[in-house]
Amino acid sequence: MNPAYLNGEYGTTDTLKVNVLDRGFLFGDGVYEAYRLYSGRPFTRELHIARLERSLAGIELRLPCSLAELDEILDRIERMTNYEAYVYIHVTRGVAPRRHALPEVFEPTLMVMAVPVGPFAAEMFQNGVGLRSQLDERWLRCTVKSLNLLANCLAVTNANRRGAFEALLIGADGLVNESASSTFFAVVDGVIRTAPLTRNILPGVTRHVVIDLIKEIGMPFDETAVTLEQALAADEAFITNSVVEVLPVTRIDETVLGPEPGNITRRVMEAFGAKVLEETGGEAVCLAGLKGL
Amino acid sequence: MNPAYLNGEYGTTDTLKVNVLDRGFLFGDGVYEAYRLYSGRPFTRELHIARLERSLAGIELRLPCSLAELDEILDRIERMTNYEAYVYIHVTRGVAPRRHALPEVFEPTLMVMAVPVGPFAAEMFQNGVGLRSQLDERWLRCTVKSLNLLANCLAVTNANRRGAFEALLIGADGLVNESASSTFFAVVDGVIRTAPLTRNILPGVTRHVVIDLIKEIGMPFDETAVTLEQALAADEAFITNSVVEVLPVTRIDETVLGPEPGNITRRVMEAFGAKVLEETGGEAVCLAGLKGL
Repeated sequence: MNPAYLNGEYGTTDTLKVNVLDRGFLFGDGVYEAYRLYSGRPFTRELHIARLERSLAGIELRLPCSLAELDEILDRIERMTNYEAYVYIHVTRGVAPRRHALPEVFEPTLMVMAVPVGPFAAEMFQNGVGLRSQLDERWLRCTVKSLNLLANCLAVTNANRRGAFEALLIGADGLVNESASSTFFAVVDGVIRTAPLTRNILPGVTRHVVIDLIKEIGMPFDETAVTLEQALAADEAFITNSVVEVLPVTRIDETVLGPEPGNITRRVMEAFGAKVLEETGGEAVCLAGLKGL
Repeated sequence: MNPAYLNGEYGTTDTLKVNVLDRGFLFGDGVYEAYRLYSGRPFTRELHIARLERSLAGIELRLPCSLAELDEILDRIERMTNYEAYVYIHVTRGVAPRRHALPEVFEPTLMVMAVPVGPFAAEMFQNGVGLRSQLDERWLRCTVKSLNLLANCLAVTNANRRGAFEALLIGADGLVNESASSTFFAVVDGVIRTAPLTRNILPGVTRHVVIDLIKEIGMPFDETAVTLEQALAADEAFITNSVVEVLPVTRIDETVLGPEPGNITRRVMEAFGAKVLEETGGEAVCLAGLKGL
């Protein structure tokens, strides 16, 4: 019974419905965004909307309304949300006769909903989680945050079954791209590294925030991809996204990186928590996790 | 106002609706099939259902009903269809709280509809069509006929805008994989060639039927991929799928392969038309097109 919006109508996720000919349903022809609420206040919402606009442009899609109208919808959904949540924004190319080619005339579908977050186990943040490496099977336009997520869904499921929290997606070139729904950072020889923004990488908003924090603190940082071998030999590692924020990685496949989150990872988690507190007055789950929740 | 079925309910495509939390809508988490009706009678329906079962297994999905029940639904939709159409079958992992990992317990969504086909211009079959080569940006599990079709949609749109009927998808290795929604055949040095069934190729039902016909006739055939250079220098080429059947290709990018469909292509079109006539009593559009429609 989460509050939701669909094409002009407010309701809940269990009542709102789309036509079977919606291109989101038939082709995954659409893009999405998700940003966190902390104590009911949005975090980095503007950055998510800016990325939404880039994703829309990337597949020649548009909002069915103005940005001001989108803001009103988001405000209203936020006000209706009285639990820890992320706000999810979903835009598709709408209803059209089934044909692969993009219709020249179309009315986009806009759906917004508040999706509950957590609860998370404090151990995730205190002990770190495991990743499972596997071939990156996604398409070659990962820059676009599209609805074509089947490869991501299968990858994380495979990882979960092998006892890992997330999948570590390795390109055909042997380089680590990212995780199935998060950005991967490794600390190699004292330098924090993450892959540069190629077509295989989603430009993560939390990735962006974290890189800014790393630079502010003045920690050594290099935007270069690591090989799987380098990741396995890393001093520390962590993943980031809007939901898990900064999550320590202490195991990749059968290799234990460390018994607990390293010092550099802790500093990033603390800086992220301070940023969330400053912007929303709420508490980041990664920081609460470190403290024992 | 096309007849359609959704989760136990019969209606039309403009009335049937799915919940916004359906994983088909959120993740493209599902598979589909499409088979042709000729004069109201199905062509190769069993082969399509067999492939549907393989696609379902490929992503650990299942039908929400027995195969016998699916047959009854298809029979009923076919009876309700009084126009040239293909029957479209769509299975998703159904409604679940939004989470990438596949839910362990789920109730699949089944949607079936009759989608109008054509009319086609006779010139397409008499003069052949053009293809536009471009990088294959699809994911690495093209064996599965999944709903993650955004790369296909963008590719054919790009081709259309450049005056071509279809996109010719080239792998990073320089080999021709297939077209955006059809199989590519080239006649090189008198031998009909098409790519073998790797992870980059959808095992086309029409591909299968056509290869059988080629072998029955006794024409030289080799299941090996051609390079783009070989495709551009081919004597003849054609594409196949359930809707366009066997469609001559007389132009790739700026290169004209021939002024009209070659003799080998014509023989394949005729053999395909004879097969359709034999199995359904109806007329294949490619054969009608050759004759001038």
